Amino acid sequence: MSELRKDIVSGRWVILASERSKRPDDFRPAQPEKKEVEPGFCPFCEGNESKTPSEVFARRRKGTRKDKPGWWVRVVPNKFPALTRGIPPVRHDEGIFQWMDGTGVHEVIIETPAHDKELFELPLYHIQGVLETYRDRVISIEKEFQYKYVHVFKNKGREAGASLNHPHSQIVATPIIPKGVNEELYNCERLHRQFRECIFCRIIRDETMIGERLVLKNEHFCVITPFAPRFPFEMRVYPLRHSPWFTTMSKIELGVLAKTLRTVLSQLKNVLSDPPFNYFIHQAPNPNLTHEAWINLEKSYHWHLEIIPVVTRVAGFEWGTGFYINPVTPETAAGFLRG
Amino acid sequence: MSELRKDIVSGRWVILASERSKRPDDFRPAQPEKKEVEPGFCPFCEGNESKTPSEVFARRRKGTRKDKPGWWVRVVPNKFPALTRGIPPVRHDEGIFQWMDGTGVHEVIIETPAHDKELFELPLYHIQGVLETYRDRVISIEKEFQYKYVHVFKNKGREAGASLNHPHSQIVATPIIPKGVNEELYNCERLHRQFRECIFCRIIRDETMIGERLVLKNEHFCVITPFAPRFPFEMRVYPLRHSPWFTTMSKIELGVLAKTLRTVLSQLKNVLSDPPFNYFIHQAPNPNLTHEAWINLEKSYHWHLEIIPVVTRVAGFEWGTGFYINPVTPETAAGFLRG
Repeated sequence: MSELRKDIVSGRWVILASERSKRPDDFRPAQPEKKEVEPGFCPFCEGNESKTPSEVFARRRKGTRKDKPGWWVRVVPNKFPALTRGIPPVRHDEGIFQWMDGTGVHEVIIETPAHDKELFELPLYHIQGVLETYRDRVISIEKEFQYKYVHVFKNKGREAGASLNHPHSQIVATPIIPKGVNEELYNCERLHRQFRECIFCRIIRDETMIGERLVLKNEHFCVITPFAPRFPFEMRVYPLRHSPWFTTMSKIELGVLAKTLRTVLSQLKNVLSDPPFNYFIHQAPNPNLTHEAWINLEKSYHWHLEIIPVVTRVAGFEWGTGFYINPVTPETAAGFLRG
Repeated sequence: MSELRKDIVSGRWVILASERSKRPDDFRPAQPEKKEVEPGFCPFCEGNESKTPSEVFARRRKGTRKDKPGWWVRVVPNKFPALTRGIPPVRHDEGIFQWMDGTGVHEVIIETPAHDKELFELPLYHIQGVLETYRDRVISIEKEFQYKYVHVFKNKGREAGASLNHPHSQIVATPIIPKGVNEELYNCERLHRQFRECIFCRIIRDETMIGERLVLKNEHFCVITPFAPRFPFEMRVYPLRHSPWFTTMSKIELGVLAKTLRTVLSQLKNVLSDPPFNYFIHQAPNPNLTHEAWINLEKSYHWHLEIIPVVTRVAGFEWGTGFYINPVTPETAAGFLRG
């Protein structure tokens, strides 16, 4: 079982995933890179359902059976989970050391049975089905109060951290609200007091008016390159309707989000020749908790999706300072991404 | 000229380095990786002094001249600086947007004339000379009050962000105290009140007593794998003598630091087959400033050096949460690093 530990100086928690434990040999650069898994052997391909843990959810053709072919979106527990479901969230505290057993949820959303099809190459109804799956899984996991934050993300390409090529996303639920999320929530409360409105609503209004960092805007979403991006061609997708939780999105809104994602991810592929990328959803913590720390959470926080292409390297300057050096201005990037 | 911009939601500053500006083509993965620069063409090799900006400091044999052969450590301004020296630090503030002209210092410390010799393979007096150069350059840059924080770091290997193979370190001075440093300073003040001593002094005492994460300890330094490391085989080097500033280190202490670094970097090379790595110094901000924000800075902060091997990939989970998944416990790592 894995363990959660807190770094006392930074306040940052880490997951020590002993389930995935490796010997130093596994990190020797002399090792040849692992080969890409062939479709016939890929555990995410149709027909190989027995190679994954039993599915917890699937969208499938009528009359087909659980853990058998016939699905078009399939959710399974991660075979090598970073965290394990169902362990009580007991916190240990001894002097300067704080830790917990590795309780949490780690699921994989297999986006399509097709090994070589990218998410944004699928039909719109299919992308919408993936997004509805995100929403439904988050709602289901949030019923367990001990999971304070549910994180939905996608790693595409080996350099972006994907260990399998077959299109998939992941969900990790943690018994602790992550430091990065916590900070954003606090800052948004403070900014709400300062600007007397949700800072994201303000960003959307200002960026739409200015236009030079606007990539697209439609009836329910806008996509911008942020004013101070860490990475070249970084993008943020904002819903126009204010809501702290992704899970409040309607079927219609998720349909428009599918169209929005398809457009900007295709543009990213064109501009940067199919780069590795990460995207993730930032939303407020589990709404079934009482949020004493954020009295104004519902008004001050606004869920969104961040897209990060992996085209530069993080080095000693960034690790040491939290500052980032970005060689491409967001105005230039937005110009290319608008096409 | 580059520009500093603040992300209003996270409070994080970024450097938009237009001097290094690139077209999307430069990020296309289809591009072949740039070839390693050959010693004959390397701007950091002896005899190629004219290929760099004029040196600002050097340790050289008697009778040799500036920007000519005869040096054994040489400091030059970065040819493609992220920040430019001498511009006034004027802060602009318009609604939700904050930015500054890219004022700062960006220097390169060429550690040896030998293209293929690694820092930790050099004689002890030479490593000590590099460390004394770090100290002397930081002291010199800190005379200019507008540079609030001076960051010393080393990227070794392409995956760690080094664009040239020739052994070198870098110094970047910024007109803003980086968010990462600021947070650590605040946390240390709070922890000083809680534990009634410097948290790093406490960590050193506890980790020395426990022993399982201790890599080495000598008369002036100890090296540990931290209790909650983000990355496999991450290490921290702590001076036993409490001081917030690296620049207070004596010649004798830097001699012992040279020995310490040589040992642990050699061990890292052995255990992980010469991995790419970053290291950086964390110290208190420019001591020539008045530090109103930290009333107890001198007692609560303790400079140190962090070493991060580049053996895992940062992905959507880490970027979105600030949480890290680490497959190797620090106890296991320390065991290997002790040899």
